[in-house]
Amino acid sequence: MCDEDRLKLKAQINQQSDIVRKLKAAKGSKDKITEEVSHLLNLKAQLGTVEDGSGPHKLILKTPKGTRDYGPSQMAIRADVFNKIISVFKRHGAETIDTPIFELKEVLTGKYGEDSKLIYDLADQGGEILSLRYDLTVPFARYLAMNKISNIKRYHMAKVYRRDNPAMMRGRYREFYQCDFDIAGQYDPMIPDVECVRVVSEILTSLQLGDFLIKVNHRQLLDGLFEACGVPPDKFRTICSSVDKLDKSPWEEVHNEMVNEKGLSPAVADCIGKYVRLSGKTELVEQLLQDEMLVGQCKSARDGLEALRLFLKYCTLYGLQDQVSFDLSLARGLDYYTGVIYEAVLLSDTKTEHGESSGVGSIAGGGRYDNLVGMFDPKHKNVPCVGVSIGVERVFSVLEARLASNKTKVRTTEVEVFVASAQKNLLEDRMKLCKELWDSNIKAEHSYKRNPKLLAQLQYCEEMGIPLAAILGESELARGIVKLRHVVTRHEIEVQRENVAQAVRDLLTKASGNS
Amino acid sequence: MCDEDRLKLKAQINQQSDIVRKLKAAKGSKDKITEEVSHLLNLKAQLGTVEDGSGPHKLILKTPKGTRDYGPSQMAIRADVFNKIISVFKRHGAETIDTPIFELKEVLTGKYGEDSKLIYDLADQGGEILSLRYDLTVPFARYLAMNKISNIKRYHMAKVYRRDNPAMMRGRYREFYQCDFDIAGQYDPMIPDVECVRVVSEILTSLQLGDFLIKVNHRQLLDGLFEACGVPPDKFRTICSSVDKLDKSPWEEVHNEMVNEKGLSPAVADCIGKYVRLSGKTELVEQLLQDEMLVGQCKSARDGLEALRLFLKYCTLYGLQDQVSFDLSLARGLDYYTGVIYEAVLLSDTKTEHGESSGVGSIAGGGRYDNLVGMFDPKHKNVPCVGVSIGVERVFSVLEARLASNKTKVRTTEVEVFVASAQKNLLEDRMKLCKELWDSNIKAEHSYKRNPKLLAQLQYCEEMGIPLAAILGESELARGIVKLRHVVTRHEIEVQRENVAQAVRDLLTKASGNS
Repeated sequence: MCDEDRLKLKAQINQQSDIVRKLKAAKGSKDKITEEVSHLLNLKAQLGTVEDGSGPHKLILKTPKGTRDYGPSQMAIRADVFNKIISVFKRHGAETIDTPIFELKEVLTGKYGEDSKLIYDLADQGGEILSLRYDLTVPFARYLAMNKISNIKRYHMAKVYRRDNPAMMRGRYREFYQCDFDIAGQYDPMIPDVECVRVVSEILTSLQLGDFLIKVNHRQLLDGLFEACGVPPDKFRTICSSVDKLDKSPWEEVHNEMVNEKGLSPAVADCIGKYVRLSGKTELVEQLLQDEMLVGQCKSARDGLEALRLFLKYCTLYGLQDQVSFDLSLARGLDYYTGVIYEAVLLSDTKTEHGESSGVGSIAGGGRYDNLVGMFDPKHKNVPCVGVSIGVERVFSVLEARLASNKTKVRTTEVEVFVASAQKNLLEDRMKLCKELWDSNIKAEHSYKRNPKLLAQLQYCEEMGIPLAAILGESELARGIVKLRHVVTRHEIEVQRENVAQAVRDLLTKASGNS
Repeated sequence: MCDEDRLKLKAQINQQSDIVRKLKAAKGSKDKITEEVSHLLNLKAQLGTVEDGSGPHKLILKTPKGTRDYGPSQMAIRADVFNKIISVFKRHGAETIDTPIFELKEVLTGKYGEDSKLIYDLADQGGEILSLRYDLTVPFARYLAMNKISNIKRYHMAKVYRRDNPAMMRGRYREFYQCDFDIAGQYDPMIPDVECVRVVSEILTSLQLGDFLIKVNHRQLLDGLFEACGVPPDKFRTICSSVDKLDKSPWEEVHNEMVNEKGLSPAVADCIGKYVRLSGKTELVEQLLQDEMLVGQCKSARDGLEALRLFLKYCTLYGLQDQVSFDLSLARGLDYYTGVIYEAVLLSDTKTEHGESSGVGSIAGGGRYDNLVGMFDPKHKNVPCVGVSIGVERVFSVLEARLASNKTKVRTTEVEVFVASAQKNLLEDRMKLCKELWDSNIKAEHSYKRNPKLLAQLQYCEEMGIPLAAILGESELARGIVKLRHVVTRHEIEVQRENVAQAVRDLLTKASGNS
């Protein structure tokens, strides 16, 4: 590492130390601090290796670049998000499958275009050549072809791997969750497609992320539009990816790129620009269907528009009319889309985990891909598919930021009652009571110390948000009594020793009824 | 690929493009066009791969050696098992964490002895040298050291990777789940240890796998025993692994191995044999504590026995006295154990998935490992840990075999009502009703075909185990009525169209009350 790099690393370390210091001063969430400290340690470890001249004996204590551990409160937030999403998938009758984390390398080859360089390969240790999965869609298509499954509605939540250069401060990682819902099968037009959009809408509503908009477009319409404007067929893909930038860049920049980098004539680019800045509802579809220039000689554009007309009609039947907008600038990068495409964006300006504005960001997206399964089938038999991927990592960032700014403490356990002792030598009594509570399916804990201090036990209850404490005392036990304490109000009642489990159950039921 | 092959492929592509063009011009069937287009895309993909110079051209459709996909019914069984296990962990107040699927290779180095050769390495693509995790314990220890966490009770259910030569017919895979529960922290003796055993007992009871026995032993007792019998200290480990074979091999074989392969004198081996064939309860502990030969000059054996005495006493307080057996032959392979060790075995002769007898197999195991975290801490600060790993793959095998022999059909979705139509042209009515049901949080599906046959729809309900069907018919709709059919009994009732959601809810509540 050259001196310059070392200086840069040191500057990063200083900056990160600042972040940690401020977080601690502001009494930020424990998890958040843990995360930032671990980032700091990572940076120091990098410098350490370098300073040491990378002595082989010094263990670097870090997770691999672009990855992180998830601590208990992050996991609690994740579990909550996963449960909400899965309950929507189940409401729509989806099954779930899982595939290995790695595939034969050739399964992934030729599916991701330029991004193939981001695939993680396994070392050749004698045997097959393997790569970590890059997304869940290609393994899904491989699964369908391999098992000759011609229809299924499935969800899959799992980790995928990309050797991206992680801008970790922007919340991007090399290991991250994807969460996909897909409907495979030969069905009538737009019926499964619109259900995918309905699923997105239910999920975003259930997660309470604020207002959102679901943009839709159609690959055939885009192709037809390019054809009608005179884009050479071999430039469709690259022009598509220029159009895709319109959500972040002004038209002038995109126009520039089309003309100066991609060699379109200004007139052709202008023609595209006239259309891709349009968005609206069904009346825009009708208007474009009257546009002779667009649909006159171009079957593809007409087919796309007619498909969208049907799609929007079904959207209304599913109550999505206010959330869905036909947007000709939506292009989406992946090559394998063949029909309707959609993308959900959050409209509220939520701050992300790292305090930066999330702006109008994409939170879910997908579309129809009718030819992918055929690429795996020996006889190229296709299984038409349509699906959507929920940007769960984005969801986590938004929620973690919101909880941090609310200073909400996330409960990381579900303990209902803590069995405490008021004096020494009551360990065996605590153990017996815990056994009874566990036998009654009550979530209970006690201290792993023989003689813990009562104050420490009660503080633990407060920290962990445990609602009840059963306090054992010598004189109470002699009277056949146990005190049950409501931790927040500190209100205590006495119950018969043999009725503790039932009394705990009653108090919990009452509390959940009140809340 | 040689130039000739490439030219041939290019010619094929041209030819196929022609076919597609002509088909489109002739407005051929959409299916046919899709098929030919996908063929064309495949050819292009082949050319792409070849041009890259990467890989063979014939796609092999399989998962990597030793791995498999999990289909919907396997996933349903797994979800059920996971939920039962997690609910026990939660009953004991455990948090959960997750770590990356890969670690810096050096984190894993030196932790698994000979088995290190089974670690999957990632390719060196420039950057860090990484390996897939081999278990969840070492990443847990790394997590504790890295984040300076001195106490936590956590569970972790996740996949681990071992390049074992998989005897797949015996249900062993290279990618498989582990399911660990560990308590880290400086506590009083045996209190967390016995809770781990209580957790195992609750899990095995909840999974209804039949009778089981939890064998316990202590590393210090084993070491003391070897010392007392005169095993040279440098042979403790290898003799330990011989003892570990006693659950499968008769004493004579193990004796042979000790003498002929490992060079013990027959007298020393006989001495070991006198002890390791003993098992019992507290009275055996007391008996051995009187054994001068064993505890006379050997502190280690006495400490181990006294620890076990306390452990067994706590077992009784937790109601485990009938399930736990002190067994001197239990040795367990891993080097890192330092205290009590335990292993649960199923006593009933359950058949596995592949029809072979599962015999008296280990289903969970663990123990105390007080020195592992210190291996990661720069100052070698230790965090004492005790934990248990549930052999979930074994659990799945047993349950899958049981379901197969019962011919039980596993439901893979939770759909509560299927919205069917009795005649053509009712798609929009089905969609509207589905919307209402989803809005009411009812799990509902309908056919993705415009005009499905009623019989096919009802058969689908039977196949999928959907309890109710809402059948839309023209005449009923004209009367403002929908038929609700109980799929199994075929009993039908008529409900007002506007009350369908409420009626479905009522029927489901009634049914769950009856069951």
